[in-house]
Amino acid sequence: MTGTKSKTMQTAVLGVSGYAGAELARLLLHHPRLHGTTPVFFGRESESDASIALTDLHPQLANGSATLRVEPFRWAALRERGIDVVFLATPHEQSRAWVPDLLSHGVRVIDLSGAWRLQQPENRAVYKFEDTDATLAATTQQQAVYGMPELHRAEIHSAKIVANPGCYSTAAILGMAPVVQAGWANLERGIICDAKSGVSGAGKAPTAKTHFMYAADNFSAYSVFGHRHTGEILEQLHLAPQQMTFTPHLLPIPRGILATIYMTLREPMQASAIAECYRSFYSASPMVRLHGEHLPQIQHVVRTNFCDIGFALAADKQRLIVVSCLDNLLKGAAGQAVQNMNLLFGWPEQEGLL
Amino acid sequence: MTGTKSKTMQTAVLGVSGYAGAELARLLLHHPRLHGTTPVFFGRESESDASIALTDLHPQLANGSATLRVEPFRWAALRERGIDVVFLATPHEQSRAWVPDLLSHGVRVIDLSGAWRLQQPENRAVYKFEDTDATLAATTQQQAVYGMPELHRAEIHSAKIVANPGCYSTAAILGMAPVVQAGWANLERGIICDAKSGVSGAGKAPTAKTHFMYAADNFSAYSVFGHRHTGEILEQLHLAPQQMTFTPHLLPIPRGILATIYMTLREPMQASAIAECYRSFYSASPMVRLHGEHLPQIQHVVRTNFCDIGFALAADKQRLIVVSCLDNLLKGAAGQAVQNMNLLFGWPEQEGLL
Amino acid sequence: MTGTKSKTMQTAVLGVSGYAGAELARLLLHHPRLHGTTPVFFGRESESDASIALTDLHPQLANGSATLRVEPFRWAALRERGIDVVFLATPHEQSRAWVPDLLSHGVRVIDLSGAWRLQQPENRAVYKFEDTDATLAATTQQQAVYGMPELHRAEIHSAKIVANPGCYSTAAILGMAPVVQAGWANLERGIICDAKSGVSGAGKAPTAKTHFMYAADNFSAYSVFGHRHTGEILEQLHLAPQQMTFTPHLLPIPRGILATIYMTLREPMQASAIAECYRSFYSASPMVRLHGEHLPQIQHVVRTNFCDIGFALAADKQRLIVVSCLDNLLKGAAGQAVQNMNLLFGWPEQEGLL
Amino acid sequence: MTGTKSKTMQTAVLGVSGYAGAELARLLLHHPRLHGTTPVFFGRESESDASIALTDLHPQLANGSATLRVEPFRWAALRERGIDVVFLATPHEQSRAWVPDLLSHGVRVIDLSGAWRLQQPENRAVYKFEDTDATLAATTQQQAVYGMPELHRAEIHSAKIVANPGCYSTAAILGMAPVVQAGWANLERGIICDAKSGVSGAGKAPTAKTHFMYAADNFSAYSVFGHRHTGEILEQLHLAPQQMTFTPHLLPIPRGILATIYMTLREPMQASAIAECYRSFYSASPMVRLHGEHLPQIQHVVRTNFCDIGFALAADKQRLIVVSCLDNLLKGAAGQAVQNMNLLFGWPEQEGLL
Repeated sequence: MTGTKSKTMQTAVLGVSGYAGAELARLLLHHPRLHGTTPVFFGRESESDASIALTDLHPQLANGSATLRVEPFRWAALRERGIDVVFLATPHEQSRAWVPDLLSHGVRVIDLSGAWRLQQPENRAVYKFEDTDATLAATTQQQAVYGMPELHRAEIHSAKIVANPGCYSTAAILGMAPVVQAGWANLERGIICDAKSGVSGAGKAPTAKTHFMYAADNFSAYSVFGHRHTGEILEQLHLAPQQMTFTPHLLPIPRGILATIYMTLREPMQASAIAECYRSFYSASPMVRLHGEHLPQIQHVVRTNFCDIGFALAADKQRLIVVSCLDNLLKGAAGQAVQNMNLLFGWPEQEGLL
Repeated sequence: MTGTKSKTMQTAVLGVSGYAGAELARLLLHHPRLHGTTPVFFGRESESDASIALTDLHPQLANGSATLRVEPFRWAALRERGIDVVFLATPHEQSRAWVPDLLSHGVRVIDLSGAWRLQQPENRAVYKFEDTDATLAATTQQQAVYGMPELHRAEIHSAKIVANPGCYSTAAILGMAPVVQAGWANLERGIICDAKSGVSGAGKAPTAKTHFMYAADNFSAYSVFGHRHTGEILEQLHLAPQQMTFTPHLLPIPRGILATIYMTLREPMQASAIAECYRSFYSASPMVRLHGEHLPQIQHVVRTNFCDIGFALAADKQRLIVVSCLDNLLKGAAGQAVQNMNLLFGWPEQEGLL
Repeated sequence: MTGTKSKTMQTAVLGVSGYAGAELARLLLHHPRLHGTTPVFFGRESESDASIALTDLHPQLANGSATLRVEPFRWAALRERGIDVVFLATPHEQSRAWVPDLLSHGVRVIDLSGAWRLQQPENRAVYKFEDTDATLAATTQQQAVYGMPELHRAEIHSAKIVANPGCYSTAAILGMAPVVQAGWANLERGIICDAKSGVSGAGKAPTAKTHFMYAADNFSAYSVFGHRHTGEILEQLHLAPQQMTFTPHLLPIPRGILATIYMTLREPMQASAIAECYRSFYSASPMVRLHGEHLPQIQHVVRTNFCDIGFALAADKQRLIVVSCLDNLLKGAAGQAVQNMNLLFGWPEQEGLL
Repeated sequence: MTGTKSKTMQTAVLGVSGYAGAELARLLLHHPRLHGTTPVFFGRESESDASIALTDLHPQLANGSATLRVEPFRWAALRERGIDVVFLATPHEQSRAWVPDLLSHGVRVIDLSGAWRLQQPENRAVYKFEDTDATLAATTQQQAVYGMPELHRAEIHSAKIVANPGCYSTAAILGMAPVVQAGWANLERGIICDAKSGVSGAGKAPTAKTHFMYAADNFSAYSVFGHRHTGEILEQLHLAPQQMTFTPHLLPIPRGILATIYMTLREPMQASAIAECYRSFYSASPMVRLHGEHLPQIQHVVRTNFCDIGFALAADKQRLIVVSCLDNLLKGAAGQAVQNMNLLFGWPEQEGLL
């Protein structure tokens, strides 16, 4: 543990009932800088007023000792409990509606939904938000920082609103950014991101597609040419829609995302140059593990906050395949949110995440 | 193919939308004795009036050629279509309510629900049926034959109502019957049936327990001391409740049931005597495969109509473990229903099931 | 069943011990045109001399009645048993070595290995064959027909050697062929085939990668820029290596392949034209099911011989995604082999495969 | 963190290459009392002399920073590295042969194999050990303490050799002990322990039974009436062989054990008395979580060191079902080994395990 003793920080999670909420709770309860405090857990707006035990929602969090409670949310609780930062694990619409009010209560917000990730209205259109106060929404939107530490470390540190990235977007952007930002990718050829995610990405609500009989022993593409995370990738990498094709697929596993990314280099290059490009880009990023010309796989990132990246270069030295993988609930959601909290508070980025 | 040419039989499936319905449709469409006719497929009572394609419900049934339709049920259709036998793949309550009327329309019924399996009111109580005409229900109940060919072959042949057994009950009863009926089991010691089923047994409705994230990488017991199939086992084997303990568990696989059955023999016996007991009992039963002292496993019965049975005898020659397994949607549901249809019509029992 | 009564054909399977061998045995034993004969099952060269029961190798084939044997292979048996066609489910090297001799014994050969699929030496190089008689090998190679009925129906009918396609190649070629052969694909942009296969594709030998602990809950790319099936795709579609990138991945499921294929059209086109292109191309192909703009998924093709194909077209009307999927052991191996046998013998292509 | 500052302890793991070895490495590397030291990792006897990176064996242990090495074992290293305790994750035979020598080098041993768990020769016979010095082996055996903290906390504290229990035995014994030791179980009726384990229990070596195609979508019983862990259960609970039947099954999941235990009470009892019996028995045991009449399931114990226990009592108040579950690699192996280390060193039992 490094760094000087900080003031004790008080965190809260709003909407702790889902899969990302469970991971957030687990990470915050074990975070070394949060010892001495207990995060406040609020249910979702739609959930019962009655306080329930956190371990009734998430039995795997039981540690045999004290019982934590999930409280119904009350605005007054923000001040009473001295909350510094609120994690929103709420539906997109709720995050969109509540963030301005949360800011006005003086708390900083890390929003795990898609509500504030997209600056360009045409990208945000897929969410069909109906802002009741368009001016306030626009002002708030401008304050939102895209919470990918590897790209926006400094802005996150001073942000009031961190828009925690989508799970697919994180895998895709981290896999593409070094080559795209170096200007090496032939964008006229187009970039293909063929991505595959475990079932937890589809959420906790029982549906026909999350039924074991549908998902098990199966594999399918979905939301082709229309997935909500596409806009994040385009926006963060300054790509035009026709320059990048993103295709999600449903894997018959609980967790994990693997993206196979196809890029064509403008000119033939050596593998060593590619490797160096990634090393250099991520030299200050403890949560990215580079595997050079070995391709990573899902089982080594599951239950970690790492994004693992490797690549292969064709004999023609121009066709480049990058494989990027991560745990969709950690680096793709709750883990990255805690990484952002660490930056907000000036703590080492990987604190509580190893 | 043996037997004389029969009149063409017309079958119908009521409630074809579930997993057992899909298997029934598949088996009937490929049944060699039903060539030249097409089964009539009706939706469930609660389902839309509009006719839909069978392959919209069950895409795996598409064979690239003719499109079959699922019709809304109409009573008049029974006569118009000349239906000889109706398979009910309907909820228990619907089967309970409709069977008397179906009989009065002159059709024979093979009911896959639990509505008519239990003769003893105390066993039937778990279903909480509210018969509107108790006398009619009682008369009808008396006509129902428990549709386990291995035990009731002759009665099924002439039955008006075949109550197709529960999936667990089939595995349990076939595993126990030879030893219990021989009077070799020490019933004071109690019989334990520890049974495990794949997720299709829980039905097609998406619920918290059929969610991939719940079922995958998990295993749990449920309905302990209270599962609805218990009564069938007791009744068929003439056991008192305290003589048999039945415990179902949920396996993280799509289909298959395996029951591990523990019995104590009244006196020490040789394994060869046990083997002979099963061979003799099932000598006329083509759908039971005996493995002697080799224990069967689920993967060899999945997608077959076989019940595989093997056993192990302890060194003390009294503790006997019988393992019985089958596909819960076939021998445990649709396959056994077709086996019963074969008996109704005087065809070889295994016709269309190999 | 259509067509006139044919002479009874005698088939043999050499190397029946693997997964494709088991499927072949199952299909041949149930083939309506082969009633009255029993296929001859030979073990692999390396396997014991002793005859064993087929159901000891593949317990799921037991049907409660007659026991089939697997014989040690003897050349004399070909004539003695009157064999018309031999299926080779043998290692590549064994198929390469044996086919000339088999031909000289007057039998026709359907080879499921990669030994004879590739006409161009540079594509065949990945197999590192060491032909003892190079001239004989070259002559034999010229006689080999690539056994994809949808592309080479007529040549297969009269072929002496049918080189049954690779599993990945089948999914890839069937997915691409209509658009590529129409000349609509912008080949300068390159075609990407991101393919995913279940574990049975890796064979029956226990290895670190087929261990349940490696494959389950995991997903990974492998053989990137170097998989043996790449040459088949290039050769059949007349593509240069840099025009097509093929990437296989390992899915945590027993069977099934899904290929997500990315092509750029030379000019913007309507979806209806794409759909018509596929319909027209496969109008005489009963084993391809077209889903138009609905994307197929693995669970609907598993345990069938169908290749299901669907597509999605981007708003720009140029980026085209085709999804093609099939069962790697059936349409990708044993099923396609039986389809080829049907063509060899002049039977309807889908006979015994529905 | 409680307790006084201890001298820095030096640990070593011998045989770190398997699944339990990986978990041990992970636990020791993160153990709060071992900060400032690094465990020494030795390969197995049979493994190459060359030092390799721990993360080459277990990539999931990579944390982006320092690279740990696995050293070839040398006896001299025990003294040179100042090792206090050696964990043996070695084959049974190697543990049996090496422990006397390790003791003579002054180190304490926690052995994860079955070598020293059984005091009674007839129970140990299944391992077929051939001790070269029978007297030394006998003396050593007497010093071995069965490493189940919930039963032998005090003896473990002062033990030289801790024989870490088998995974199945831990689930079974913890589930039965309170009722058996209370004398409430009718042993004449026999206890049934129907246990199910994930595939990691079968070890890392690729075999026909650990092949994905065998284990996935399957379920089977094995080693019926003959599993090596049976003797541990009998010995720890002072049962005669015919009083307890133990049946292991293979679950298609990576990790986790669930035991369904059937006992008959001597007299009818209230559920509250049963609950109190377990509460009292485990009142000082932080790694056992009691669920009363709720039955635990595997997914809540996986990746924890907890054993979860619940029960159900029949209406007759005599038939009792206890369900006990745990993670076979943690509470069933590496986690319990660390728990034992904590006791050896006088640290809180759960240190580093929550």
